[in-house]
Amino acid sequence: MYELGVVYRNIKRADKAAADGLAQYGSATVHEAMGRVGLLKPYMRPIYAGVQVSGTAVTVLLHPGDNWMLHVVAEQIQPGDIVVAACTSENTDGFFGDLLATSFQARGARALVIDAGCRDVRTLTEMGFPVWSKAVSAKGTVKATLGSVNIPVVCAGMLVTPGDVIVADDDGVVCVPAAIAHETLEAAAAREANEGEKRARLASGVLGLDMYKMREPLAKAGLRYID
Amino acid sequence: MYELGVVYRNIKRADKAAADGLAQYGSATVHEAMGRVGLLKPYMRPIYAGVQVSGTAVTVLLHPGDNWMLHVVAEQIQPGDIVVAACTSENTDGFFGDLLATSFQARGARALVIDAGCRDVRTLTEMGFPVWSKAVSAKGTVKATLGSVNIPVVCAGMLVTPGDVIVADDDGVVCVPAAIAHETLEAAAAREANEGEKRARLASGVLGLDMYKMREPLAKAGLRYID
Amino acid sequence: MYELGVVYRNIKRADKAAADGLAQYGSATVHEAMGRVGLLKPYMRPIYAGVQVSGTAVTVLLHPGDNWMLHVVAEQIQPGDIVVAACTSENTDGFFGDLLATSFQARGARALVIDAGCRDVRTLTEMGFPVWSKAVSAKGTVKATLGSVNIPVVCAGMLVTPGDVIVADDDGVVCVPAAIAHETLEAAAAREANEGEKRARLASGVLGLDMYKMREPLAKAGLRYID
Amino acid sequence: MYELGVVYRNIKRADKAAADGLAQYGSATVHEAMGRVGLLKPYMRPIYAGVQVSGTAVTVLLHPGDNWMLHVVAEQIQPGDIVVAACTSENTDGFFGDLLATSFQARGARALVIDAGCRDVRTLTEMGFPVWSKAVSAKGTVKATLGSVNIPVVCAGMLVTPGDVIVADDDGVVCVPAAIAHETLEAAAAREANEGEKRARLASGVLGLDMYKMREPLAKAGLRYID
Amino acid sequence: MYELGVVYRNIKRADKAAADGLAQYGSATVHEAMGRVGLLKPYMRPIYAGVQVSGTAVTVLLHPGDNWMLHVVAEQIQPGDIVVAACTSENTDGFFGDLLATSFQARGARALVIDAGCRDVRTLTEMGFPVWSKAVSAKGTVKATLGSVNIPVVCAGMLVTPGDVIVADDDGVVCVPAAIAHETLEAAAAREANEGEKRARLASGVLGLDMYKMREPLAKAGLRYID
Amino acid sequence: MYELGVVYRNIKRADKAAADGLAQYGSATVHEAMGRVGLLKPYMRPIYAGVQVSGTAVTVLLHPGDNWMLHVVAEQIQPGDIVVAACTSENTDGFFGDLLATSFQARGARALVIDAGCRDVRTLTEMGFPVWSKAVSAKGTVKATLGSVNIPVVCAGMLVTPGDVIVADDDGVVCVPAAIAHETLEAAAAREANEGEKRARLASGVLGLDMYKMREPLAKAGLRYID
Repeated sequence: MYELGVVYRNIKRADKAAADGLAQYGSATVHEAMGRVGLLKPYMRPIYAGVQVSGTAVTVLLHPGDNWMLHVVAEQIQPGDIVVAACTSENTDGFFGDLLATSFQARGARALVIDAGCRDVRTLTEMGFPVWSKAVSAKGTVKATLGSVNIPVVCAGMLVTPGDVIVADDDGVVCVPAAIAHETLEAAAAREANEGEKRARLASGVLGLDMYKMREPLAKAGLRYID
Repeated sequence: MYELGVVYRNIKRADKAAADGLAQYGSATVHEAMGRVGLLKPYMRPIYAGVQVSGTAVTVLLHPGDNWMLHVVAEQIQPGDIVVAACTSENTDGFFGDLLATSFQARGARALVIDAGCRDVRTLTEMGFPVWSKAVSAKGTVKATLGSVNIPVVCAGMLVTPGDVIVADDDGVVCVPAAIAHETLEAAAAREANEGEKRARLASGVLGLDMYKMREPLAKAGLRYID
Repeated sequence: MYELGVVYRNIKRADKAAADGLAQYGSATVHEAMGRVGLLKPYMRPIYAGVQVSGTAVTVLLHPGDNWMLHVVAEQIQPGDIVVAACTSENTDGFFGDLLATSFQARGARALVIDAGCRDVRTLTEMGFPVWSKAVSAKGTVKATLGSVNIPVVCAGMLVTPGDVIVADDDGVVCVPAAIAHETLEAAAAREANEGEKRARLASGVLGLDMYKMREPLAKAGLRYID
Repeated sequence: MYELGVVYRNIKRADKAAADGLAQYGSATVHEAMGRVGLLKPYMRPIYAGVQVSGTAVTVLLHPGDNWMLHVVAEQIQPGDIVVAACTSENTDGFFGDLLATSFQARGARALVIDAGCRDVRTLTEMGFPVWSKAVSAKGTVKATLGSVNIPVVCAGMLVTPGDVIVADDDGVVCVPAAIAHETLEAAAAREANEGEKRARLASGVLGLDMYKMREPLAKAGLRYID
Repeated sequence: MYELGVVYRNIKRADKAAADGLAQYGSATVHEAMGRVGLLKPYMRPIYAGVQVSGTAVTVLLHPGDNWMLHVVAEQIQPGDIVVAACTSENTDGFFGDLLATSFQARGARALVIDAGCRDVRTLTEMGFPVWSKAVSAKGTVKATLGSVNIPVVCAGMLVTPGDVIVADDDGVVCVPAAIAHETLEAAAAREANEGEKRARLASGVLGLDMYKMREPLAKAGLRYID
Repeated sequence: MYELGVVYRNIKRADKAAADGLAQYGSATVHEAMGRVGLLKPYMRPIYAGVQVSGTAVTVLLHPGDNWMLHVVAEQIQPGDIVVAACTSENTDGFFGDLLATSFQARGARALVIDAGCRDVRTLTEMGFPVWSKAVSAKGTVKATLGSVNIPVVCAGMLVTPGDVIVADDDGVVCVPAAIAHETLEAAAAREANEGEKRARLASGVLGLDMYKMREPLAKAGLRYID
């Protein structure tokens, strides 16, 4: 349930080293490092491909067809933040375009994650301001109803608390709670540590069946080979 | 983000009078009484029509295609509870059927709200055990992976904390945080207080335009009548 | 493209005998009688089964999450009308409930067809006020933005002009332009004239293949039987 | 890949005792008895609730918006059959209505399972002819293009071979290959044998955790209880 | 409701200067300039990114799985036109490919907007013939049933009258009625006039809150800041 | 219905010349050459554009959220194969990423077609390993339940038998049964033989109406031109 009409100005952002460092591992590795949780629904897609980013969440709750609070959240952005926008009911209107992106970028925001639509995607691409959204739509919005800024929100099925770390790339968007950002960074690093070696072995023709010693558990589970 | 593999045995349930009393007002009125927030997504539908119920939430987090934790949550049910089940990714399998319903009913559960599928709907209807779900499906599930019980979960887009009040009927499902259950009950009662009088006036032919004094604000907004 | 902020008070309703008479044939027959056009998209479903109704359209254009204009349209209803509500973008909020239904019913409306959500469905069912909608949702709406009344609208993919005849039942909703309401009534009657005889022959075991003389065209099209 | 323009007149139907006997167990139990396979996608829903039926499949392949082959398949129906209709691309038109149902019923068909739309649902309900479909739609169809009858088809994601057993109820539709119909009947019977006792124990308050001896494997998997 | 089997040869196209000039403003600005109406549903997506185009609509009504009328409409194309194709029921088949595109391009068409599927997207991209569609699908179509050309059609939820101006880009597709094309061009130009200055101010760090003087209305609406 | 827990090691692959040769014609032409059948549902999309490929199918059946069998199928891959993965219920998790792709590529696989999700799409793009999938998702999977390898599977609505030819490009994915691969290659070649000439004529301004001699059948069907 949401508290409406409030802006929290002081939020505790996750450790900066962790918030910055998680970008290099990408959403899939980070999601695994947390035990396969934290992922926003896969309908959240980047407006252009090839970006891999992380940062601290500032959150905003919107009403359908109303982008007033995006102007309010702009003031709360600090360099290194990613804005996470939720909506009180399903809506695909274009809440966000190039003017807001200019403002967000000027404040130091790295990206927007919005559980609704955005527009001006060609200009956003040229500006290099990445957005993960549910839809692209030219449909404009009004400025009439109060939502809130920096309250915990549910965005694309995931609870995001202000200050959490957001990791986003072509595979999707993950939310890492601030309290476990550092340990998640270490777990992600550990996961990747021997990926290069694994990749080399697989590339040389070694099978995962052998590399991961799966033949015995498969046989135990009853797998039969038929010639 | 979810904590996995834990069962919280002691949760603070909302005030019982409020938890029981909200049923009479139904999801639409309760949702209005909270300021139009708290509603689960409208894809959550009852398996049979005509039930209006409320109770305190015990929560369970499931993995796709795995209903093991529904047996674990059964033990945590107290009379007057409603089980709220979330899933770590989208899934429509039939996690819940007549045997689990028998067990839940024996423990005193009033209903199940599940962001996934259920089955045995004919028997559930005969038993009078109401379920709100995303799908009906005969697809069975396995019992292999740990989720959690009584952690905060996101169910159909809404954050549900154990002990919150759930109100469900043919219009949908609303979650009322325990902390505001009592004031929401009062607000709902106040909303309904003069509904009978309003209904009588509208039934007699009085227009909402006049009863709610809308003509002036409509004119101010620029509405033009053309003959 | 829509004209906003206007209410047309004088619309030309279709011939009353045709508008009333089409109900008896139902949406499937009427749709066939018009040459298989005029049907709203099949996502429009009745909130309860078993109603078959027709009437003249009064139209209303709504904004997402805003039901203000439903109060404005109420005044334009005449006995025998069916209200047809379109929305400027996709929305499933519950724009319509028991109080508005009381008012619509008092004005003589026979039904509501709304390309969005409605609520209070249990009460609407008890009142016997039928609604065809895209969704059921407890989500309330605000009263802030002007739409229009009695302009041509696109509802569930179909153009509806004020005064057209709407035919709705468990199979869906059809729009019959006022100008062809009478000839459509006659065509529908003609289609049904020998349905009883056809049904009796089919019930006796005669095959459609023979009754409709399909064997020759099927053979000509190249159908082969293999024993 | 489909062979077009052919009608196979001689198909090998599954053992009649098995085909008839499976109805009593319902789709969920039969699906479990086969090892959790065989289920059509859950978007296949009955047009009215409360029917539980089984029978042997006669199959038909349709083109979008064209129901010609439903007349062809009618001749191939034998008492105890269920017609299974697939479509070469996604389509929700109303391919099937009361006249075809009269013919199918006269031939002894028990039901229709169609991966598309049907119409005249009120009359079908009155006639007691059950249909599981993807949609209800008044949209009519033409009779112009050849499909096939009694070839293997993919219906709602499942391969159905003519003569297989279809089991359908409120939970969905299952296809049982003719070759394993008898053993599936026995497996289903075995599953149900001690359901009554299980239900009684659960109703008396015994927990599934104890009845199924889950406490040890849950502990071994690492489940922690927190007071 | 649609008139079937007709081709209107003489349509009144919108003023050429307006039809050509609107391209430079793009769908979002034009949609705003009309008062936030006129937008086709956001499921209409370009087959390749980066095109911004406008032109006068020639319309065509298709039946599902049948592209016969696309050959008929080709003859009615004049240089500067955009073909707008609607379908009598939902269908994602590939109605349009490289041969038709070659013909449309030879006639001077600038684009196709189709509420269904298209194919040969790689070749269309190489040819530089832009298409906005609901789907991409290799599924071919037949040539069997008459639709119509240059009648008003509903395409992706919007009424398009022959001769209207279509504006399409990466954000979506807008329809501007011919009668207001000129004033919409002026309104769009006015909207853009001071965008450069606004962008410069936002880029310098000025907040929208101050630039648009939102602080007072936000406070009046009750927004509270919490430290 | 699926046989579970088996791996067929010896499958009969389609004629290599046909399997290799079909790539050049693409999915749309091959689908037409087979009589407009064989196409997987259009929700199957490539993770990057511009690839046109064909090869022989090795198949794998997966359970939702479980990618164990993808390691098993890797061993069965021969150079020139395309892996076709089906799932027992709907699931969008990311079953496949860069490590499996490295292994598949080392074994000589040309592509993956998966009726579920994949991840690491940026790396897959860099590696040049094409995937057609229903979704992109960072959601990881477990390795717990047996499916099967090289049994006939239904993938995106189409039956694929091991050894069939798969043709995939930006328009979609087609399955050509091994038995008709050669004749389909010839039919596709014949279809393309005079495409160049047709394209040249259309580019010169000749209308399809004349080139395909459609004017007479259109007139016979009743098409009327109105000036």
